[in-house]
Amino acid sequence: MQIAIGLYPEFTSLDAMGPYQVLQHLPHSELVLCAEQTGLLRDDIGLLNIDVRHTFDDVPHPDVLVVPGGYITRSLAVDGNPVVEWIRGAHPTTTWTTSVCTGALLLGAAGVLDGRPATTHWSAYSELASFGAEPTEQRVVIDGKVVTGAGVSAGIDMALTLVAEIAGPIVAQSIQLGIEYDPQPPFDSGAPSKASPEVMQALIESLAR
Amino acid sequence: MQIAIGLYPEFTSLDAMGPYQVLQHLPHSELVLCAEQTGLLRDDIGLLNIDVRHTFDDVPHPDVLVVPGGYITRSLAVDGNPVVEWIRGAHPTTTWTTSVCTGALLLGAAGVLDGRPATTHWSAYSELASFGAEPTEQRVVIDGKVVTGAGVSAGIDMALTLVAEIAGPIVAQSIQLGIEYDPQPPFDSGAPSKASPEVMQALIESLAR
Repeated sequence: MQIAIGLYPEFTSLDAMGPYQVLQHLPHSELVLCAEQTGLLRDDIGLLNIDVRHTFDDVPHPDVLVVPGGYITRSLAVDGNPVVEWIRGAHPTTTWTTSVCTGALLLGAAGVLDGRPATTHWSAYSELASFGAEPTEQRVVIDGKVVTGAGVSAGIDMALTLVAEIAGPIVAQSIQLGIEYDPQPPFDSGAPSKASPEVMQALIESLAR
Repeated sequence: MQIAIGLYPEFTSLDAMGPYQVLQHLPHSELVLCAEQTGLLRDDIGLLNIDVRHTFDDVPHPDVLVVPGGYITRSLAVDGNPVVEWIRGAHPTTTWTTSVCTGALLLGAAGVLDGRPATTHWSAYSELASFGAEPTEQRVVIDGKVVTGAGVSAGIDMALTLVAEIAGPIVAQSIQLGIEYDPQPPFDSGAPSKASPEVMQALIESLAR
């Protein structure tokens, strides 16, 4: 089973690294990081520079396709973009096609989400709907072979859900135990419905900077 | 405020990338990834190759020091190891000295944890105690200016706790909202006390492979 995480310049690091940490432990699988070109590829803040060793052309038919998000997806989610065309070409033969955060917009642009329930970062529901998807306020949405996760950190939950589908709950739980994923956030502010107006305002000001 | 995440070959990716994702949003701060040498540095499974652009010598006195873990720490946690000596040199002038997972063993070898309560990956309590620390079964342990997090994924909780200490709860909650950290693991199996014997056995067999 080949699992390909498809990257592009300005992806959000944890969107990719959450599933990467979980899926590397899936038995009988080969994990690949790929992008349009090999060589150094930077994340959205430009501090993480990854040496990518496989192109999309090297892995045209992965069994499991994973696409992370990033602010940049709003402009990448168009016909002809390399990551969109990779998804479009791969999806018909995948066992699972998945995304984290605004990676869902890239699935959308590739035609994967038309008429499907799906999730994305909470700030991108309207963009998601523009691709014919039904935005669904859930941490992880499974619709047939398409699995979408909510924003950034949700990639960990998405990947554990995926492992349970592929290899069963015991394997998924053993990976959870290995990465000590017993989350205890110091606050309960991880969704718009839970955050105070003051917190939302602080985030908006931070994004403006 | 300079925040340095100290890397070494065979670090565990999420140990570093959790705090990296959170701390990059701390206002008025500069985040640096550093290692003994510049150039490509591989993680513990060898698939993630990061181009590191700063050496430990470039950042001898960070305000915030963060050290991730990895299986390899069991052999790195000795006098004279470059990451241990970097910690030893930096700790006297830090505002915060922190670790994720078995990064705590590196703090321990640098003499930081002697007589202190601290946490690490659940599998490494006895190694932690060998450095004079008091192993404490908590997600995040704050003792003075030393903050330790439990295994792998706990780096996210550790970093949010740290942001709250540095910049207050509103900033920490706004970062939590931005990365949609509203965790909903599909299982409750992230700690030895919560995992079934069958799950523990599956993990042990997986590690043996």
